Amino acid sequence: MKFAVSLLKLAQDAKEAANRLRLATTDEKNQALELIAKSLEKEHEQILRANGEDLRIGRANNLSESLLDRLSLEGGRLDNIISDLRHVASLPDPVGEIIEEQKLQNGLLLQKKRVPIGVLGVIYEARPNVTVDVASLALKTGNCALLRGGKETLNSNRALVHAIHKALAKSPLPKEAIGLIKSPNRSQVKQLLKLDSYVDMIIPRGGEGLHQFCREQSLIPVITGGMGICHLYVDASADLTRALDVIENAKVQRPSVCNALDTLLVHRDVAATFIPEVVKRLNNVSFRLDSRALKITQAGKLAEDGDWKTEWLSLVLGIKVVDSLDEAITHIQTNSTGHSDGILTNTESHAKAFVEAVDSASVYVNASTRFTDGAQFGLGAEVAVSTQKLHARGPMGLKELTTYKWIIKGDYHVRSE
Amino acid sequence: MKFAVSLLKLAQDAKEAANRLRLATTDEKNQALELIAKSLEKEHEQILRANGEDLRIGRANNLSESLLDRLSLEGGRLDNIISDLRHVASLPDPVGEIIEEQKLQNGLLLQKKRVPIGVLGVIYEARPNVTVDVASLALKTGNCALLRGGKETLNSNRALVHAIHKALAKSPLPKEAIGLIKSPNRSQVKQLLKLDSYVDMIIPRGGEGLHQFCREQSLIPVITGGMGICHLYVDASADLTRALDVIENAKVQRPSVCNALDTLLVHRDVAATFIPEVVKRLNNVSFRLDSRALKITQAGKLAEDGDWKTEWLSLVLGIKVVDSLDEAITHIQTNSTGHSDGILTNTESHAKAFVEAVDSASVYVNASTRFTDGAQFGLGAEVAVSTQKLHARGPMGLKELTTYKWIIKGDYHVRSE
Repeated sequence: MKFAVSLLKLAQDAKEAANRLRLATTDEKNQALELIAKSLEKEHEQILRANGEDLRIGRANNLSESLLDRLSLEGGRLDNIISDLRHVASLPDPVGEIIEEQKLQNGLLLQKKRVPIGVLGVIYEARPNVTVDVASLALKTGNCALLRGGKETLNSNRALVHAIHKALAKSPLPKEAIGLIKSPNRSQVKQLLKLDSYVDMIIPRGGEGLHQFCREQSLIPVITGGMGICHLYVDASADLTRALDVIENAKVQRPSVCNALDTLLVHRDVAATFIPEVVKRLNNVSFRLDSRALKITQAGKLAEDGDWKTEWLSLVLGIKVVDSLDEAITHIQTNSTGHSDGILTNTESHAKAFVEAVDSASVYVNASTRFTDGAQFGLGAEVAVSTQKLHARGPMGLKELTTYKWIIKGDYHVRSE
Repeated sequence: MKFAVSLLKLAQDAKEAANRLRLATTDEKNQALELIAKSLEKEHEQILRANGEDLRIGRANNLSESLLDRLSLEGGRLDNIISDLRHVASLPDPVGEIIEEQKLQNGLLLQKKRVPIGVLGVIYEARPNVTVDVASLALKTGNCALLRGGKETLNSNRALVHAIHKALAKSPLPKEAIGLIKSPNRSQVKQLLKLDSYVDMIIPRGGEGLHQFCREQSLIPVITGGMGICHLYVDASADLTRALDVIENAKVQRPSVCNALDTLLVHRDVAATFIPEVVKRLNNVSFRLDSRALKITQAGKLAEDGDWKTEWLSLVLGIKVVDSLDEAITHIQTNSTGHSDGILTNTESHAKAFVEAVDSASVYVNASTRFTDGAQFGLGAEVAVSTQKLHARGPMGLKELTTYKWIIKGDYHVRSE
């Protein structure tokens, strides 16, 4: 493959910077983060001006209001970004931890030590906050990052990375640790995915299409995630009044996110009483009902087959009546994306069976699926939510931006066959 | 993509079997492994007959002696395979471990529990022992496996998997947990790599070409590994007599494997005395020397540039004189595949600097690179040696065939914004 010269240089410089960043102490990394915070404060005006330019172009290109909203750094948002950055600086540094240590019988000392991954490639949508967010999480864990944000935020990202570079130049860390891919050319994303000699991990942040593209094109391991078709199963023994609160929270609090509820499964014994209650409580929600649910309430339309495999990301909820816990589990095994699924029940044996059989990153008993989140899980920060099973599963914090190496210390040991 | 019907069915059946296998107890899994051991004993004759057929065809096709040797189950090898299987049964089961547990401030109980990955796709060379090996490691960890061995061992693999299926049919585990891809058609390997709806992890075992093919084609996360360009750096303070033992062990004991030594770096202060000693001791080795080493000994030829990036897999050794520890580290950072690299030194600060700067899966101080191995590291078994940084790094044992899920138990908890 032919690579753009600028991209190749960015990647080579990052790999070289990674060799230096690996040796940085926690103090040096935190010092750099504080310098970045100060630099962003100092460049406040220039950043907002660049962001204003992005907003102007966005409006001229008729971007949707929600896109423009994501793009905007106005109204104190830049201050929030800076305060998030200082929060990352305050978190414990996972790097350097001795995860395991043992003296082998032959006298070799074997250690498993937590170390940075190296160079991260992060591809994301038109959200300038992600630029600072990812840069700070990467630096905190001793990683370099190549950033490729949505082209709609290019001016903002340039200004932000300019401020980051100014700070890094004054810091003990190499400036090349953070690289911004400026070309709006989509082909550079494809090129980035082939740079496996320099980049160790790809994190796509965005829709299913981007994830699929990365899976298809990348020679570098990709953290797949983001898509959540989430289920709650209401068992016959559930506390129905409190179940309503959980379902409302899971569906309505923030319907556009991946941990929001998509399908409600209801045990047949409580369906006739409970489904009308759900319909009453979730009065701004549209329902897709299976034939049995439709007999109970007319407040929705008959679900089509594809509906059970749809992530709604909006105020739509599928409802299906099931005969048993097993039927609920089978439905989830067939339709879930493995993000967040739960049971509402007062029968402990049902909770146990559900938790063992449902193979999702986060499995809930009597709680809202909305808790799937790095901050809620106490991870301090969230890099992404993984729905694949390798490396990391569910919310990823700082630790998930690290790997380990084996260190073996001997006294001129040789292996006997 | 269009999938072969038989392959698709194998994958679908495996995914369904994974839902049942996930619930199996350690006793049930061990019971199944013992039934397989007995079944292999009972089918001993049929298996050896099938293997004889593979050998006959192999000879007719002029396979090399070393390939025929790998292929053969004669001379007690089947007995060794059965005893390895029983060893796997005796190992502790990693599945079910609660890795982390905490009560969050809001009262939610959060657990991180070790669980099987699901369905593994394993692509390997013409070695029938891998068939039983992988099947036992997969079953022990509650995983299903789709096996695609070299076409030269198809008869042997059929006979082995037939015996495994007979045993599984009598066991508590589903027979479909182990699937053999019988088509000799290479295109089925490519298809397997696209079955991301059913398969969770691809493990290629074989040469760099197979690994590259998998990285390029797979939609499923691939464990890359196997290739090791390994270095030892002889510091000026090393005990040179004992260093010779380590170098001989690393280079000569088993030159065809990935943890064998490829390049020796020697500090200039000891080069003139030490390099002739190396040449004398490693008298059956061919040397590729940099210009400074060539001035010291004529017992080799001048190394070409590509030589430093060559995994020799034979009795060839590169030798290069370096001015400093830093130069040694830089050479390794530039040329290593990140498998196994070491320093021989009696200066603790040099050892420390080397270990921190060299970013390889296994980093050695005063020991042979030959120790990079699951059994040597006390992992009980080895699935593969990973040279990538995600999920697992270095020798992979049973634990590396697992993932985790988050279990969250509440009292009808809802998230407050």
